Amino acid sequence: MTAAVQLTKQGQDQVQPFAEWMRQVQADMESALGRFLPTETTTPAKLHQAMRYAALDGGKRVRPLLAFAAGELFSAPAAVVQRAAAAVEMIHAYSLVHDDMPCMDDDALRRGKPTVHVQYDEATALLVGDALQAQAFVVLAAADEGIDAARQIVMLRLLALASGSLGMCGGQAIDLASVGLNLSLAELEQMHKLKTGALLRASVLLGAWSGKVLSQEEVAALEAYGAAIGLAFQVVDDILDATADSATLGKTAGKDAADNKPTYVSILGLPESQALAEKLRNDAHEALAIFGDKARRLRELADLIVQRKA
Amino acid sequence: MTAAVQLTKQGQDQVQPFAEWMRQVQADMESALGRFLPTETTTPAKLHQAMRYAALDGGKRVRPLLAFAAGELFSAPAAVVQRAAAAVEMIHAYSLVHDDMPCMDDDALRRGKPTVHVQYDEATALLVGDALQAQAFVVLAAADEGIDAARQIVMLRLLALASGSLGMCGGQAIDLASVGLNLSLAELEQMHKLKTGALLRASVLLGAWSGKVLSQEEVAALEAYGAAIGLAFQVVDDILDATADSATLGKTAGKDAADNKPTYVSILGLPESQALAEKLRNDAHEALAIFGDKARRLRELADLIVQRKA
Repeated sequence: MTAAVQLTKQGQDQVQPFAEWMRQVQADMESALGRFLPTETTTPAKLHQAMRYAALDGGKRVRPLLAFAAGELFSAPAAVVQRAAAAVEMIHAYSLVHDDMPCMDDDALRRGKPTVHVQYDEATALLVGDALQAQAFVVLAAADEGIDAARQIVMLRLLALASGSLGMCGGQAIDLASVGLNLSLAELEQMHKLKTGALLRASVLLGAWSGKVLSQEEVAALEAYGAAIGLAFQVVDDILDATADSATLGKTAGKDAADNKPTYVSILGLPESQALAEKLRNDAHEALAIFGDKARRLRELADLIVQRKA
Repeated sequence: MTAAVQLTKQGQDQVQPFAEWMRQVQADMESALGRFLPTETTTPAKLHQAMRYAALDGGKRVRPLLAFAAGELFSAPAAVVQRAAAAVEMIHAYSLVHDDMPCMDDDALRRGKPTVHVQYDEATALLVGDALQAQAFVVLAAADEGIDAARQIVMLRLLALASGSLGMCGGQAIDLASVGLNLSLAELEQMHKLKTGALLRASVLLGAWSGKVLSQEEVAALEAYGAAIGLAFQVVDDILDATADSATLGKTAGKDAADNKPTYVSILGLPESQALAEKLRNDAHEALAIFGDKARRLRELADLIVQRKA
């Protein structure tokens, strides 16, 4: 039984505690990613081992959690949400592999493990990222009884747009160009809206589309929620980068300051950044008002994103 | 008017000369790629300029030619074939950008121009490749009146599989691992089947699916054709790498031998390689028998692939 359809023995009135729901989605995702990636012995074995190294056994799975939470809003079939969530997570995993490479952030540590180009080599890291991106579309374009083709196309389009030059890659390009510059708050926000926000928003929408054809009103509400938690995620990332240590983060802390990269903390200061994160959490909650109690998991995730310690 | 629907004034009996058809498809493709890529002034401008630098104004457009030729078999609407061909060409263009990077082939010259990481920088080249791959799926998943969603999904799945770890990226990984090794002919063939063959086969199939839902017999015939010309393409590439000069090729000649990479010429010798190319051309022609005269362009392309000088 998967998290999306989990019921307690007592029936629907008994609500599963959030922490338990989260662990179940994370375990579910780990298993789904394992099934949706070629096995370690499939030729070319080294590439597939490295792809699995990059995508499995790590990460908070924030994007899959968002997809599952949004899927619950519309009682999406577990098999459909799993594909959507796995596809988004593969895009995220590929972006980390490429971002860590020497020509980008040149990071040796990720989720407490050596990064892919350190564990393997640079050429393999490049191919792992390329192949994970393709695999995301393989997974999302798969023949699946739980969903009609027209809706599947909408979801494929959403993921492709969120990943490309007008989404995640575009944000990464703006980030690269901004090192050492004095970005305004608006410019910083625009960069993060693309760099991390686009894929977080897509996670929410893909989860929701897994359930049904969305109305314009529903899309607008979910977009507003996604925009708020996307930005909150980054503000909190900057706060943690400035205040936590590497062991807690599982990656190199204080790196943005060392790299002279503009952050919310460097522009707004710490107290105002914390106030902004809190405001965005409220925005996220408000956006969900039209969905009532079924949006419980999305609300809890907004809280988690703002209150996390790593 | 596009190449796919081109008729002479005299009507369908007058066949457009192959060279003219080819130039028209190439011009059509250039214009379609220009439309399907964000403009040079779209933010982030540098990334979009570099994407256009990588994808426009260059190349023989072999994959689009195959897609258009296969589209003609089933009178595919021009707008649908254009998207399919552009998507395949974007995947091809991204693979060249990444292959040329220092951690892969470290090549400074491509189509007679500086490679992307030389013209821009490595980080930009990495992002250009990533974003071009995403854009290929944006283009193929676009809302388009000319095609039903179920067929569009089949095409998206075809492209994703041909691009990923069981297709092009997988072949690239095998190629990387083979440097300095004595590959058998079977191993070399397997590598090329993935590295270049998968996308060439996909080009043929995507073009054909642009026209109609294919029967199993039609798929089998087109797969056989695609496999033959895919392999022929590589055999001829190896022959040209061993016999032509850099100016003619528009890239560094003799590089495979210098890199100690196994090639058809190094395993079979030149005369046997040439005989193999000729045999594959015949195989390609035979595979097309069930289509009769409508397969004229695919036949001509098989001839072109084997007889090309660059």
